[in-house]
Amino acid sequence: MPDHDSIRPFRWAGDSLILLDQRRLPEEVSEICCTSAAKVAEAIAQMVVRGAPAIGIAGAYGAALAWREAGGDSGQRERLLAQLRAARPTAVNLAWALDRIAALGDVDAGRVEAEANAIAEEDLAANQRMGELGAAYIDAGSGVLTHCNTGSLATGGYGTALGVIRSAWSGGLVARVYADETRPWMQGSRLTAWELLRDGIPVTLLADSAAPLLMRDGAISWVIVGADRITANGDVANKIGTYGLAIAARHHGVRFMVVAPSSTVDMALACGDEIPVEHRDPEELLAIGGKRLAAQGADAWNPVFDVTPAELVDVLVTERGVVEKPSTATMAKLFGGQP
Amino acid sequence: MPDHDSIRPFRWAGDSLILLDQRRLPEEVSEICCTSAAKVAEAIAQMVVRGAPAIGIAGAYGAALAWREAGGDSGQRERLLAQLRAARPTAVNLAWALDRIAALGDVDAGRVEAEANAIAEEDLAANQRMGELGAAYIDAGSGVLTHCNTGSLATGGYGTALGVIRSAWSGGLVARVYADETRPWMQGSRLTAWELLRDGIPVTLLADSAAPLLMRDGAISWVIVGADRITANGDVANKIGTYGLAIAARHHGVRFMVVAPSSTVDMALACGDEIPVEHRDPEELLAIGGKRLAAQGADAWNPVFDVTPAELVDVLVTERGVVEKPSTATMAKLFGGQP
Repeated sequence: MPDHDSIRPFRWAGDSLILLDQRRLPEEVSEICCTSAAKVAEAIAQMVVRGAPAIGIAGAYGAALAWREAGGDSGQRERLLAQLRAARPTAVNLAWALDRIAALGDVDAGRVEAEANAIAEEDLAANQRMGELGAAYIDAGSGVLTHCNTGSLATGGYGTALGVIRSAWSGGLVARVYADETRPWMQGSRLTAWELLRDGIPVTLLADSAAPLLMRDGAISWVIVGADRITANGDVANKIGTYGLAIAARHHGVRFMVVAPSSTVDMALACGDEIPVEHRDPEELLAIGGKRLAAQGADAWNPVFDVTPAELVDVLVTERGVVEKPSTATMAKLFGGQP
Repeated sequence: MPDHDSIRPFRWAGDSLILLDQRRLPEEVSEICCTSAAKVAEAIAQMVVRGAPAIGIAGAYGAALAWREAGGDSGQRERLLAQLRAARPTAVNLAWALDRIAALGDVDAGRVEAEANAIAEEDLAANQRMGELGAAYIDAGSGVLTHCNTGSLATGGYGTALGVIRSAWSGGLVARVYADETRPWMQGSRLTAWELLRDGIPVTLLADSAAPLLMRDGAISWVIVGADRITANGDVANKIGTYGLAIAARHHGVRFMVVAPSSTVDMALACGDEIPVEHRDPEELLAIGGKRLAAQGADAWNPVFDVTPAELVDVLVTERGVVEKPSTATMAKLFGGQP
């Protein structure tokens, strides 16, 4: 295992999927044991596990549980797969992983389990490869800013954007890692800081809204983020706030890198307008930790993702290769053959 | 009193300044009684009272208390004024109010109290005037977005940016008011939502980082913000996040309005680079309500203000008049004669 990577968001126990409960980090390191596909779907919906690649992997293990539960009942399998598929709408990795399982056809549960293992292992390998490819763009002494959590916790391990940061850090290229706190769910404060510090990489948190000042101060040369879905023209759905970072980066001449495995690419959608953007409970904004923040009667608008148009992306890193200045043409070159 | 304005952040009780404790809103409506200048300075530093015009007014009443305490001892008065002046660095209104008191010379405490009353009354009148001037720019049916709290709570009453929104709302021009929650201190969620709802104006909160998506969706035609200091070239220091909003607004063709009384204009500074930007305790980002959010060992960068360059400001509204496309030349026209 490469340096600076010790955390995994799940363990497959043969008859259950054990998930690190990311809702409780960093205060409490606890696990939830999912013994059924429905329990996995619920854990994905409630964000026990989150991060596009990680929910794809969790979905695949959920399918392995579905196969056990349903026995030979293919109608029951279908219903459980549909329940898993509906758990969250924006990240395409979940549907991608379940499509891959469904394509196996009428196999036994052991074969589905082996496929889930393969999906997890391939994701880890893809992240390590993307780490190398992305780090090659980082000049020594760079400050880098990331958003949300795209690390080991969000993937099969190592991370996407955070994988590039790990690789660049290991190569001695990074002067300082900045992480947006990432309201409302605080993935930056709660998860990214926790996992980087556990793996020996120092990190400085900031309010999401402070990033443009950081850029103006000349403190960073790259914004490096993950993705939940990338369309055929290179538009990128990712955690709310990504779009504003891309606009501010362009304004300051700071470069903008998106790091995502090819399982995040959805060539069936022409552009970002077609991506379903999840909205979550307004309470995520109106209260914190069960404590009411806003006045009674206040309303909130809580989109969880936004779409960054391809023209604001300088570099898209995948395990298949790098797309500079993504567009329908440059995307088709790398992903044209994708099923 | 105009419609939709019922809240005041302070009451002068003759021998003390009674402040609404804005740290505890909206959960608890409580007051703090300041019987000395030192207590007022402490209340300003700890943000019992906040908002550039409101801390100017509180400082003036603090000076009235200083005069009572010091009796005829001018050295003691000077020391207390210096203590008030040092309470917070960025908003120039505090220094402006104390300069105005100091310029009275060797007067009695009653005269200082009368001056503090005048500063408060003039601020309210300025806000009502700015409300009219700013609302004239709002087309019927507009969505508007504001940041931080610039309302009655932040001023002598009515508000600056929120005063324009009150006036436009009263005139039936506003389709919907959006308010950023404004990390880390949550002035939007805690204060703006509370005061607008108390005054009968519905409001929708959003994460600071969601504003660019709101703009892309075409939901707003104006961003309307206050200011803590405006320099001779029209650069605007205001709550962290304002700068990013201005960049995103320009990117989307959304117009950007700054509303501030002339006491916020500092013609002694040529440009925004000269403004001292306050940084506050990293704990504001690392914990919420005393509860630890981030992993132990995480560091945070917590600038409280940023500077928006004049070229991103479409309209600057003051009680003396409106400056469109502020610049050194257009600012000098309105403020050239300012002492």
